[in-house]
Order: sequence, then C-alpha cells, then structure tokens
Amino acid sequence: MKPVILASQSPRRKELLLRCIDSFLIDVANVDETINPNKEIEFEIIRLAKDKARAVFERHQDCIIVAADTMVVLNNTPLGKPNNREEAKDMLRTLSNNTHQVLTGLCIYDHNGPHTHLSVSDVTFRNLTEEEIEAYVNTGEADDKAGAYGIQGKGGCFITHIDGDYYGIMGLPIAKVATMLQEIRQ
Amino acid sequence: MKPVILASQSPRRKELLLRCIDSFLIDVANVDETINPNKEIEFEIIRLAKDKARAVFERHQDCIIVAADTMVVLNNTPLGKPNNREEAKDMLRTLSNNTHQVLTGLCIYDHNGPHTHLSVSDVTFRNLTEEEIEAYVNTGEADDKAGAYGIQGKGGCFITHIDGDYYGIMGLPIAKVATMLQEIRQ
Repeated sequence: MKPVILASQSPRRKELLLRCIDSFLIDVANVDETINPNKEIEFEIIRLAKDKARAVFERHQDCIIVAADTMVVLNNTPLGKPNNREEAKDMLRTLSNNTHQVLTGLCIYDHNGPHTHLSVSDVTFRNLTEEEIEAYVNTGEADDKAGAYGIQGKGGCFITHIDGDYYGIMGLPIAKVATMLQEIRQ
Repeated sequence: MKPVILASQSPRRKELLLRCIDSFLIDVANVDETINPNKEIEFEIIRLAKDKARAVFERHQDCIIVAADTMVVLNNTPLGKPNNREEAKDMLRTLSNNTHQVLTGLCIYDHNGPHTHLSVSDVTFRNLTEEEIEAYVNTGEADDKAGAYGIQGKGGCFITHIDGDYYGIMGLPIAKVATMLQEIRQ
C-alpha cells in the first residue's frame, strides 16, 4: 500500500487522521493562502486544499496526499483571525445568538490527480453576555482562532447546535477521508 | 458563589465541565441505573440524571450539583454495552448506513430542587464494510461503549453527519450547563 502523507502541521488534523489510519507521514509545502474575494468561497477553499495537496504530491509522487483548508463563514463572508482583542469581541458579538457556517475543503491527491470534497456545517451559538465575551477573550483562546473562538476549547460551551460534520468543523472530515482512501486504494 | 459538584466519574464529563467553569468538586453517589422498559426512554434518562444529582445533593446541600446520563438509541431502543465482540459487530452492522439518536439527560440540582434538560442528537453513520467492523472491534474500543463505538476515538471516522449538540453526544451539553448555571446564580 502506498504511504499517506498529511499536508498539514495542525496537531488537531494529525490527531484526527490517526483515527482513520494507523500510520502516515507529515510534509507541508508553502502555499500562498490568499483567497480571491471575487470568487465563490466554496471554490476558493477547495482550490486551497488542492494547492496544498499538489505541492506536496510534487515531492512525493509515489504517495497519497491528504490536505484540507477550513474557514469560518458568517453571511457569506469568511471570518479570519482577529487582529486584536477588540476585534475578537466584535466577532463574538456577531456570532452570538446566530448561526454561522464552517467550511472545510478536503483534497486527496494521488497519481490520478485530485479527489475533492467540501464539508459544510451550520454552527449555532447561544446568546453570549458581554461579561462572557470579555472573560473569554481575556483567556487568550480567541487570539489565534478564525472567528475568534476555539470549538475544542472553552469556545465549545457557546455552541448549542451543530448540523453537519463535527470533524469537518474541527478541520478534517475523517469519515470522508476514510471512504475516499478506501476507494483510491481499491 | 456556591461551589459546583460534578456527580460523575467520567473523565470526559470532567474535561467538558472545565470548559464552562474554572473549578468544581467531584462526588459520585451509587444510584440504581436500571431503566424501566415500560416507560418512555426520555423520561427514564431525565429520571436517572435527577437520581444521580439528588443523591449527591443530599450530602452537599450548600452546593450546586451537575449530573447527566447518556444513551445511544436506535429505533426507540437503547443500545447498551456489548456483552462480547460478536454482539459489538452486530450493533455496528445495525448502525452502519443508518441514523441513530444520542440522548443526554442533564440535571442541575440546588436548594430549589432539580432543573433538567434533555439533549437529543441525530448521528449518521456511513456504510461500514465487514473488514472495517472486524478491524474496529479488534482494537477493543467497542468493548465498554454503549452502541459499540466511541465518538471520540476511532469510531469518530464512522460518522458523516451530526444534527444536534455534539457535547451532549459526548456526555455533557455544556452550552446548556453554562446557561443554566448563569440563571441559577442570578
């Protein structure tokens, strides 16, 4: 069987992929992650996942590459990482008592080229008080997170409802990865 | 502020509650966990959560007790822990390519009595091959799990879709815990 390479440095994606397959390598290529605001977000996410996978495949053409890209989207606008804590608070105020989307583009690349999948999930926040927003942002958890929250951390207790793929929200839709790897390896 | 006590030995519930509140104690009372098959499952789950909370409240009447009970339900029938690996495989065959429910009853108990909530989530499995079922059961992960899978382990890669409260599925609906504690403490 061909070796699998995860094209991501994210410890979370590594932990998730370990649930599907017992062993893989990690190699990450530098890819320009700028998205084109004139194109559909869905298209751009898949393109980024493909770019990441292809760049690593070029170095390891006898392997199967797994790459993904995740975005937090509110009213069709991607939410990046907050530039400062005031911006983090503003983001949380807009997410409060509201439903946003988390999109993950997945690309598995082998000698047949890219195989892609888009995971789209709705995430609903309960109403957050100003005190909660203040206290959460002061923990620092929001600082480096797209959308100013971490679903796996204290941000998890803002979420009342998920409709979609939890592992996609975490960054890697592992059920889909498992199915695609089975198909590719047949 | 009154101290909070978690009435559960589950390390997962402890980890989840830590996302809502910074400190709490743990105390667990022995409660008969037999469910009455002649009553509605929803009723029985809430009753069990209440029984667990009340038993601990009786020992700590100046505290706020958090208790929960979780069940995996397929076609209105609770799935317990498999008695052996053949039973585990049978359970996974029935869950494969199918949607089941995970129900968590939550009870927060203070001097005003019980405050309860029921979290109901739909969990959809992709189609599992016999080889996958065999390999998964051989890892031992299914042995002590209701429904013969662990959502936080390798079982996570069977799940294509969740509609509901992921943290409820994990055993403690923390967004609801946070809201209820806010209301109780006002």
